[in-house]
Amino acid sequence: MANAIVSQSGGPTGVINASLVGVIEEVCKHKEIDRLYGGLHAVAGIVKEDFIDLKKLPIDTLERVAGSPSSSLGSSRDKPDDEYCARILAVLKKRDIRYFYYIGGNDSANTCYIINNMAEREGFQLRAFHVPKTVDNDLLVTDHCPGFGTAGKFVACALMGDDLDNRALAGVKIDVIMGRHAGFLTGASVLGKQRDDDGPHLVYIPERPFTMEKFLADVDGVFKKLGRCVIAVSEGVSQPDGKTYAEVLAEDAERDAHGNVQLSGTGALADYLAGQIKSNLGVSRVRADTFGYLQRSFAGLQSETDVDEARRCGRQAVLYSMKEDNGSVAIKRLGNGADYAVELFRTNLSEVAEHTKSVPDEFINADGNGMTDAFIEYAMPLVGQLPKTEYIGNYPKA
Amino acid sequence: MANAIVSQSGGPTGVINASLVGVIEEVCKHKEIDRLYGGLHAVAGIVKEDFIDLKKLPIDTLERVAGSPSSSLGSSRDKPDDEYCARILAVLKKRDIRYFYYIGGNDSANTCYIINNMAEREGFQLRAFHVPKTVDNDLLVTDHCPGFGTAGKFVACALMGDDLDNRALAGVKIDVIMGRHAGFLTGASVLGKQRDDDGPHLVYIPERPFTMEKFLADVDGVFKKLGRCVIAVSEGVSQPDGKTYAEVLAEDAERDAHGNVQLSGTGALADYLAGQIKSNLGVSRVRADTFGYLQRSFAGLQSETDVDEARRCGRQAVLYSMKEDNGSVAIKRLGNGADYAVELFRTNLSEVAEHTKSVPDEFINADGNGMTDAFIEYAMPLVGQLPKTEYIGNYPKA
Repeated sequence: MANAIVSQSGGPTGVINASLVGVIEEVCKHKEIDRLYGGLHAVAGIVKEDFIDLKKLPIDTLERVAGSPSSSLGSSRDKPDDEYCARILAVLKKRDIRYFYYIGGNDSANTCYIINNMAEREGFQLRAFHVPKTVDNDLLVTDHCPGFGTAGKFVACALMGDDLDNRALAGVKIDVIMGRHAGFLTGASVLGKQRDDDGPHLVYIPERPFTMEKFLADVDGVFKKLGRCVIAVSEGVSQPDGKTYAEVLAEDAERDAHGNVQLSGTGALADYLAGQIKSNLGVSRVRADTFGYLQRSFAGLQSETDVDEARRCGRQAVLYSMKEDNGSVAIKRLGNGADYAVELFRTNLSEVAEHTKSVPDEFINADGNGMTDAFIEYAMPLVGQLPKTEYIGNYPKA
Repeated sequence: MANAIVSQSGGPTGVINASLVGVIEEVCKHKEIDRLYGGLHAVAGIVKEDFIDLKKLPIDTLERVAGSPSSSLGSSRDKPDDEYCARILAVLKKRDIRYFYYIGGNDSANTCYIINNMAEREGFQLRAFHVPKTVDNDLLVTDHCPGFGTAGKFVACALMGDDLDNRALAGVKIDVIMGRHAGFLTGASVLGKQRDDDGPHLVYIPERPFTMEKFLADVDGVFKKLGRCVIAVSEGVSQPDGKTYAEVLAEDAERDAHGNVQLSGTGALADYLAGQIKSNLGVSRVRADTFGYLQRSFAGLQSETDVDEARRCGRQAVLYSMKEDNGSVAIKRLGNGADYAVELFRTNLSEVAEHTKSVPDEFINADGNGMTDAFIEYAMPLVGQLPKTEYIGNYPKA
């Protein structure tokens, strides 16, 4: 018998706690594992032995955890180097922790990978498993990532409401959505479209260069045709030279330890784009919202598909760790539409660590300002049930 | 037999369509009314006779309308003067419209009032009824306004998630919430608090002067105590001289026909407050979100109490119009907590028109930076069922 630890790293999501509960409930079934530590605030807490005893949590508490957004063990943006990882390994040895479950994105897979390699070199038997999560949906190998579906549901519902709002009081509306390098979440803005003229009418993602000339021409075209225009823009859109507009705008660009410029938690990009439309196109009513943290941590809104898969991924990491030394849990899609189903498989940590996936070409329209039917087929099952809306303002006149 | 018209005016809400459906379903029961016109885009469409025939809508369409956010007949920000109202009256006469139902805020009650007086002077028999709606909850006479509960539910759920997010990655988080003159909606940010240290820890509403010195001292105090701070700020907070911060910041302040400065649809206030905290308090992680239009038009999120009452208000306006000449529908609260119940009553248009209600003193704490238990008792039944969340990061250490 040995002990285990589970932690959550990086940006919170709406279902990362479902993965946590999946790990806990599966660990409780295996006699090989004695104590299950919850490592608070990821690597930052592990080096300080900031642990709680997860086997002591009652089942009703666990179910509330699984239904709660954000990371219930806390998180961290620390990106551990070798010295940092050596301190982590020292704690694992001291506490006889032989099972290491780490829920996070590609940086977390990399942390898992480094610690696992270090343990191997030092002859310390460790089972290190990565459980995927990210609202950005940008991990390699896996078909999609737990966390994306729930954030995508928020974005889809937001755009459904916002498009109806824009019908009621016409104008140009810009919504800036999370996604530093990958446009999947911004793409999810189209998933609630029901009518031919439903917005968003234009979608801009980081996978395509964003020029102000093209943007203004696109908006002008839609506005002249419909008398209104709803636009979804990724926070990570970039000039053709690769520099993001957020970088251009952020005079006091704040960088985290990963070298990432802060893109969320500021309305600068949205306000800048609104100003460009006002001054260049002469549209009087231009509004811009930045969805910010609401889209990753909103209480009471989960995709049923997403929460189920996130929990399964947590359980599966424990199952793999009974037989294998290390790995990352990945999702394989078995069918689409009404036949949507998945199975889980193990992939190597090195396949996931530090890499990122972009939105593939077949998901982006030829003009680079919208999503294709192939994207909708891919993303629709992940967001779960969406509400149906009605707008009667365009019914035949009496 | 004569004809009737119903329109929706002002900012959309999550349940203004429930009121619309209430009007439609009740009108269908009364033989006194022949055709029921839906006047598109409020007064702007009425003068152009932009009408649809609402009796032709099938029941399943109506139910989808009732569940959809935003104004399904479109809206307008036009504030009609006497000449404008004369044009409206001419259309009513031409179409033999003797029943006028207008769903909106205090400006809409005023429009109703002017048209009704004008009709009386000209000897044209008209029944003019106002159906209340506003996310701001700022109408006089009525205990509360349809639209507030659903927007309040969005705000409460957003803060519940955001507070958990702030626990996971600590720092200062500012959320800017709608409410030009009244702080009810910003106050609703506290309704999801479950634990003693849950955020929002500070709440600023327009009913109390906002000084930067006090704000920074408040934030510093919470941050030093908890190591984090979640703040809810109304978009309408003002300096002691009465000037809103939004006005101070908006160089190109855009004014609508009501003389209101545009406060929503820009992240300027949030970013400004975040900058002040960064530079004056030396907190490194400061984030700010502006909820914008999401809080009034989000698909799939309604307060069950709110949608029920909004529909009843629509039906009741029609019932009153069978016996009375004019009026506004108001809500009286009969009990609180588990005994929450309401009854509707008729009030004079002049009591509601153009006036606004502020958050009463007993709902605001002594420091002017939070809400009291009396406010929670008042607002809690209106937002309906809120999710329960769990955070285990502060459980006893292992």
